[in-house]
Amino acid sequence: MPLSGDSLYLLKAESPGPSVSKMVPKMRTSAMILYGIYCAMTLLQICAYQLGNLFGWGEISLFDSVCLTFGSAGTGGFAVRNDGLASYTPYIQSVTTVAMILFGVNFSIYFFLISRKFRLIARNSELKCYLAIILFAVALISLNLTLTGGYFSTFGQTLHHVSFSVGSILTTTGFSTVDFSRWPELSKMVLMSLMVIGACAGSTGGGIKVSRLLILFKSARAELRRLLHPHRVEVMTMDGKRVSSDVIRGTNAFLIFYLLIALTSMLLVSLDDMGTETTVTAVLATLNNIGPGTSILIGPAGNYADFSALSKIVLSLDMLFGRLELFPMLILFRPSTWRKH
Amino acid sequence: MPLSGDSLYLLKAESPGPSVSKMVPKMRTSAMILYGIYCAMTLLQICAYQLGNLFGWGEISLFDSVCLTFGSAGTGGFAVRNDGLASYTPYIQSVTTVAMILFGVNFSIYFFLISRKFRLIARNSELKCYLAIILFAVALISLNLTLTGGYFSTFGQTLHHVSFSVGSILTTTGFSTVDFSRWPELSKMVLMSLMVIGACAGSTGGGIKVSRLLILFKSARAELRRLLHPHRVEVMTMDGKRVSSDVIRGTNAFLIFYLLIALTSMLLVSLDDMGTETTVTAVLATLNNIGPGTSILIGPAGNYADFSALSKIVLSLDMLFGRLELFPMLILFRPSTWRKH
Repeated sequence: MPLSGDSLYLLKAESPGPSVSKMVPKMRTSAMILYGIYCAMTLLQICAYQLGNLFGWGEISLFDSVCLTFGSAGTGGFAVRNDGLASYTPYIQSVTTVAMILFGVNFSIYFFLISRKFRLIARNSELKCYLAIILFAVALISLNLTLTGGYFSTFGQTLHHVSFSVGSILTTTGFSTVDFSRWPELSKMVLMSLMVIGACAGSTGGGIKVSRLLILFKSARAELRRLLHPHRVEVMTMDGKRVSSDVIRGTNAFLIFYLLIALTSMLLVSLDDMGTETTVTAVLATLNNIGPGTSILIGPAGNYADFSALSKIVLSLDMLFGRLELFPMLILFRPSTWRKH
Repeated sequence: MPLSGDSLYLLKAESPGPSVSKMVPKMRTSAMILYGIYCAMTLLQICAYQLGNLFGWGEISLFDSVCLTFGSAGTGGFAVRNDGLASYTPYIQSVTTVAMILFGVNFSIYFFLISRKFRLIARNSELKCYLAIILFAVALISLNLTLTGGYFSTFGQTLHHVSFSVGSILTTTGFSTVDFSRWPELSKMVLMSLMVIGACAGSTGGGIKVSRLLILFKSARAELRRLLHPHRVEVMTMDGKRVSSDVIRGTNAFLIFYLLIALTSMLLVSLDDMGTETTVTAVLATLNNIGPGTSILIGPAGNYADFSALSKIVLSLDMLFGRLELFPMLILFRPSTWRKH
C-alpha cells in the first residue's frame, strides 16, 4: 500500500516529536518494525514480572502483570490496586521503573540496537540528554529528601522510590509507590519540570519531549552566538545532521502554542480557587498526560473529583491536546476548518 | 558625535524590546527627543498631583509628588509611606494609575503624537494590544472580585483599585493601594500573567514586553498556516512592515532563555520550602522587575526578608537579568567572554 501525501502529513502531524524519521525506505516496513519492538518489549516485561513468582521475589498474578505492563508500555499509568504500586514488592517496582524508562526512549534506538548500529546509539544526543536528566533528577531529589530528613529510613529506599517516581513522571506514565505530593518544595519543583520535559520523541510518552527541548536550547544558543559574531554562519546540527530551519520554526511555534494552552487552562481552572499549586499542576499533569499532580489534593493519593465541571472539561481537552501533540487539535479548532469551501 | 558600530550594538542589546526603532535619522537627536518626552511627562505628573492641593482633592507634599512621580516614571515602584499608596486620596491614586499606564506605552507613540502622525498611532498594534490587555484584565478581575464578594463595598471602588493594581503590575511598577495577595485565585493568576507580559517595548517597564509576545504569537500562527498550506509564502508583518526572520529568531531565543532563567531560579528558590505560590511569584516579581508577588508572604503587605541568602542572591540576579533584557547578562556569564584572546 503506497502512502499518499495525506497519510504522510497525518503521520507527521501525529508522530510524537519535532520530525519524522523513517527507519527504512518503506514507511510500511518502518511501522511493522515499530510494532514488533513494542510487542517484544511488552512480552519481555510480562516475563520479568513472572520471574518474581518463580524466584520468590514477589508474587504477582498474570492479570496484574499484563495490566501493569500495558500501563507502562503505553505510559498510561493505570494500576490494578487502589494504592498504585505501593503494595507490590521492591522487585516488581524495580521492574516497572526500568520498563517505564525503556518505553520513554525513542524506539528507533531499539531499531539501531537490532541492526547493530551501535555508533548511532552512542552519539544520539536525545538519549544522552534523557539519561542525564534522569540521573540528575534522581540525585537532586534523593539529596533533597535525605538532607530534609524523615522521608525514608535508608538511603537505598530513598534511591529506589525516587528512581521510580522520576521514571514515572518523566516518561509521563503516572504510576506511584509513594505520595510525592508530601515531599519538600524543591523535589516537587523538579517533578513539575520533568512533567513538562516528558519522554523522548518517537516513544510512547508525552510532554514537550527531550529532542524538542534540545532543538530549542541549541537554536537559542546559536542566536546568542550570532549576536556576538553577526557575520559568522551558524549551522545548527543534531547527531551530526543539519537541523532545517523549518523544524526549528515549527518547534518554536509548538512551544508558543504549548505555553498559550497551558496559560489559558490555568486561568480557567483557577476559577475553582484551589490554590496556585493545585491549579498549576492539574494543568501540567493533564497537558503532559501524566495523571497525578504534585499537590496533596491531586497527588498520587488524591484525585480530580473536587474540580468543577468546567475545569474537568478544560483538563480533558488538555489531555487530548497533549496526546495529539497540539497541532491536530489546533487545526480542529480553527474556524477555517469548519467553513464550507 | 557619530555613533560607532559598538554603541549601535550596545543600544540594540540594552534597548527594551525586540528591535530598535530610530525616530529620526540621527540617533543623537532620537535620544534627545526621548529625554524631552520623559522630562515633560515627569513634570506633568508632578503638576497633576499638585492640582489635588489646589482643588482640595487630596493633600500631597511636593516631596511626595516628586518621589511618587519618579517611582512611576521609571516604573520603580518605591512609595514614601509604609502602606504604599493606600492612604492617599482616590484622586492621587487615579493620577498614579494613569501615569503608570502612560509610562508603559512605547515612547515613540508620544513622538508620533508631537509630530501629528496620528495614523501611525491608530495602526500601532502593540498599543492596541496593550490597551486591550488592560481592559480585559480589569474587566476579568473586577468581575471575579464582585462575584466572589466581600472585597469592596461598591463596584466603583472595585474598578478603581483593580485599575490601579492592573496598571501597576502590567507596567511592572509595583505600587499598591490594596493587598491583592488576598484576592481569589483567578485574579491572582491574571496578575501573574500580567507580570510576565510586561509593558510595551521602548517604555520604562520590564517583563517580556507586549511587542515580543505579539511577534511570538504571530510567528506561531504563521507556522500553523504553513502546516496547512505548505506551498504558500508566509510573510509576517507588524504595523504594515515586514518582520525580518532575524527579529523572529532573536525573539524566540529570548523566550527560551527567559524560561530557562525562570525555571533555574525557581528551582534554587524552592530550596527555602516556602510553597509553590511564593516560589513562583518571587521569581516572576523579580525577573520582571515588579516588586510585590501574589502570595501573602511577599505580597504588597509583605517582603522578601524571610528568604535565605542564596535565594536573595538568585532573586537579585533575576532583577538584573530582567532590567538588562537578558542578553547582556547572558554574554557576561559566557565563559568565552572571560577567556584571554
